[in-house]
Amino acid sequence: MIGRNKSQADPADKDAHQGPGESGPSRRSLLAAAGAGSLGIAAGALGHAAFAAGPAAQAPASDVVEFHGPHQSGIATPMQDRMHIAAFDVTAESRDELIALLKDWTAAIEHLMRGADVGEFGATGGSYDAPPEDTGEAIGLSASHLSVTIGFGRSLFENSKGPRFGLEGRIPAALADLPHFPGDALEEFRSGGDLVVQACADDPQVAVHAVRNLARIAFGRARVRWSQIGFGRTSSTSTSQATPRNLFGFKDGTANLKAEEQRALDEHVWVGDATGKEAWMNGGTYLVARRIRMHIETWDRSSMREQENIFGRTKREGAPLSGGTEFSEPDFAMAGRGGPIMPVDSHVALAHPSANKGVQMLRRGFNYTDGSDGLGRLDAGLFFIAFVVDPRTHYVPMQNTMAKSDALAEYLKHTASGLFAVPPGTTAGGYLGQSLFV
Amino acid sequence: MIGRNKSQADPADKDAHQGPGESGPSRRSLLAAAGAGSLGIAAGALGHAAFAAGPAAQAPASDVVEFHGPHQSGIATPMQDRMHIAAFDVTAESRDELIALLKDWTAAIEHLMRGADVGEFGATGGSYDAPPEDTGEAIGLSASHLSVTIGFGRSLFENSKGPRFGLEGRIPAALADLPHFPGDALEEFRSGGDLVVQACADDPQVAVHAVRNLARIAFGRARVRWSQIGFGRTSSTSTSQATPRNLFGFKDGTANLKAEEQRALDEHVWVGDATGKEAWMNGGTYLVARRIRMHIETWDRSSMREQENIFGRTKREGAPLSGGTEFSEPDFAMAGRGGPIMPVDSHVALAHPSANKGVQMLRRGFNYTDGSDGLGRLDAGLFFIAFVVDPRTHYVPMQNTMAKSDALAEYLKHTASGLFAVPPGTTAGGYLGQSLFV
Repeated sequence: MIGRNKSQADPADKDAHQGPGESGPSRRSLLAAAGAGSLGIAAGALGHAAFAAGPAAQAPASDVVEFHGPHQSGIATPMQDRMHIAAFDVTAESRDELIALLKDWTAAIEHLMRGADVGEFGATGGSYDAPPEDTGEAIGLSASHLSVTIGFGRSLFENSKGPRFGLEGRIPAALADLPHFPGDALEEFRSGGDLVVQACADDPQVAVHAVRNLARIAFGRARVRWSQIGFGRTSSTSTSQATPRNLFGFKDGTANLKAEEQRALDEHVWVGDATGKEAWMNGGTYLVARRIRMHIETWDRSSMREQENIFGRTKREGAPLSGGTEFSEPDFAMAGRGGPIMPVDSHVALAHPSANKGVQMLRRGFNYTDGSDGLGRLDAGLFFIAFVVDPRTHYVPMQNTMAKSDALAEYLKHTASGLFAVPPGTTAGGYLGQSLFV
Repeated sequence: MIGRNKSQADPADKDAHQGPGESGPSRRSLLAAAGAGSLGIAAGALGHAAFAAGPAAQAPASDVVEFHGPHQSGIATPMQDRMHIAAFDVTAESRDELIALLKDWTAAIEHLMRGADVGEFGATGGSYDAPPEDTGEAIGLSASHLSVTIGFGRSLFENSKGPRFGLEGRIPAALADLPHFPGDALEEFRSGGDLVVQACADDPQVAVHAVRNLARIAFGRARVRWSQIGFGRTSSTSTSQATPRNLFGFKDGTANLKAEEQRALDEHVWVGDATGKEAWMNGGTYLVARRIRMHIETWDRSSMREQENIFGRTKREGAPLSGGTEFSEPDFAMAGRGGPIMPVDSHVALAHPSANKGVQMLRRGFNYTDGSDGLGRLDAGLFFIAFVVDPRTHYVPMQNTMAKSDALAEYLKHTASGLFAVPPGTTAGGYLGQSLFV
């Protein structure tokens, strides 16, 4: 349904009252240029340059993220400011239908990420008697560093209700259901899902447009199970980015893995040594999603001393309480009044690799607010997203410790959960998830 | 509770493990500069310049919107891209408490709009044993053209449950409950409210920070009834802005009132000739809020012909079907096949001033998406906001017509409603809403 090489609608099939073509920059003209082959190459080169940019790099000359590569976009990609994520239940009943959906999504994502409309004719061309192929609300907006990441939930592989897609033998061991953690208050209708689509962009309308069009393409084959919009990033994934703040007002993700740390990414994020029936995951990773409601009203009434002791960092600078600046290593041995100056139950102490057998996560979560809760309080918090090589070693132990011991835990409630196997990236002519089906 | 002239916390009351001060640009340093009086003046001048900028103006040198003036900000202010709006139920029981809340809000809004923290000590100063005065998540972010607009619902004035604030004699006749419109499916918990706070900004975290801190200041005096985040503007309110697109993929608000149209604003937006017990509204306006769910899945399956006939505009250019460009006047008399080329039930035809006794609205709504609806569909649409001189003449008749006759109506469902009297702006030393209490 997507044609890259034919991008000009035939004006002959339009009614006489069609207005003149637009004159400003547009997705339409981008698509036309890409059809000629020129932009496709240019965007790829620029996208790669932007991706590889180090701390000294200037603003990229393009806001296109490269789609093709060994890994999917939206993981080590420098973190965009806005996100829309959606999980889907697959209603298609055959393996071929599922593969066709993944192929259609791949083609659409490639268009969307370079700022083009979905489809051969986009939002404004094609037959006048047919629905437009793209919904149109992103016409005139740039690519906005859009990245789209897809993943597979365990339910996609399972066969408990009868034959499904013949995937039951390919379940990676790491895609084990997360255990119930202390304090979990999960809402089923916001959790799980056969498929996940994470769209991140500088402009939220671009991210929403991507999810909405992928949902539309899935019509009759998969339907939205839950979706969440995140308005502000809560981590940095590049050394060139300043550390943002969460809704507790603290810098978050100071010690996060960064795109520039290739060795650490290979160790803690990318699957690299899977064999046999799991080999399809090489180049992939696992996405852990947790919707974490924050009791901000309670937090806001706690003293500055308590807030800083709970995080183990100063609020203004984000420095460890043991001194230095934001990026100083905490000194967990330094003595304070009546104990270590870094409280043993502080967030930094419990999350630090030294307390977690050296494991690290690539965190990529977003602040959210979803109206109010009917009790006079904002429903706000963190939509936590992390990418890890194996949730059994890189998420479950840490979350167990935090849920039991973290001084912050009393201000948090986990209301939703999801775990997805994120397959590797693809190259021209391939499709996302292809390794699972060969 | 807000001190403009003392902005430096005394470092002596901080513990020894406090890290060094931050070095980057921050709200903290802005506040310090404002305390010295310099930025307050500069921001005011720049804010005014930005406000008055015409189509030929360059990007403003400051992203501060002026707070003081005859009208509140966030109405004729060039439209920002993001919004957070919240309604409150007042729990305070005395007129003095209500006035104190409005004074505290006014002082906080003045700080917030120039990019400063709330309070004397902000998010990182003050006593270590007290909660910080600002919640902190906007530290390091700029003013981002933040505007904050407050309004009063009819319930604030009413006295049906016994004496309240002594305002029952001051209800403006225009603050009459909106009638039930055909097709309304209003959810009570998302509708109404004693007070409303509309925060708009370029950065959603700045808007959310403003609403959250005003909610915090209101603790024990007013509590959140509903709140809504909007991710993309759907109108232009300045001739310098391009027309954005709604989630139907069409340009919206082409014919909207603009900040530069002073005479039209005086006629259709600003109350100017109120007398007697309503005189307090002069310089004010009325805010109509409607949460309009769009049936985007159904829309997306309708043909391009149908979509364009429903809007009466072309999808790509946004030109009337009678020809020309986006800003051409529609020709409702032009004949097409079997009738006028501009369908009589098209959105443009029904919304046009010529069909509405010449009335116009200043529309300032936002696209929203709030997860999914449990039926496999995104819960997405338009959070409609309009400012009008009198809803009885400038909103109710048009909405009655549209709900009955608009071809678009079958793709829409109004799920929430609010109407608020927006008092005039204020000057230094005054507070928002003051005219109601004198």
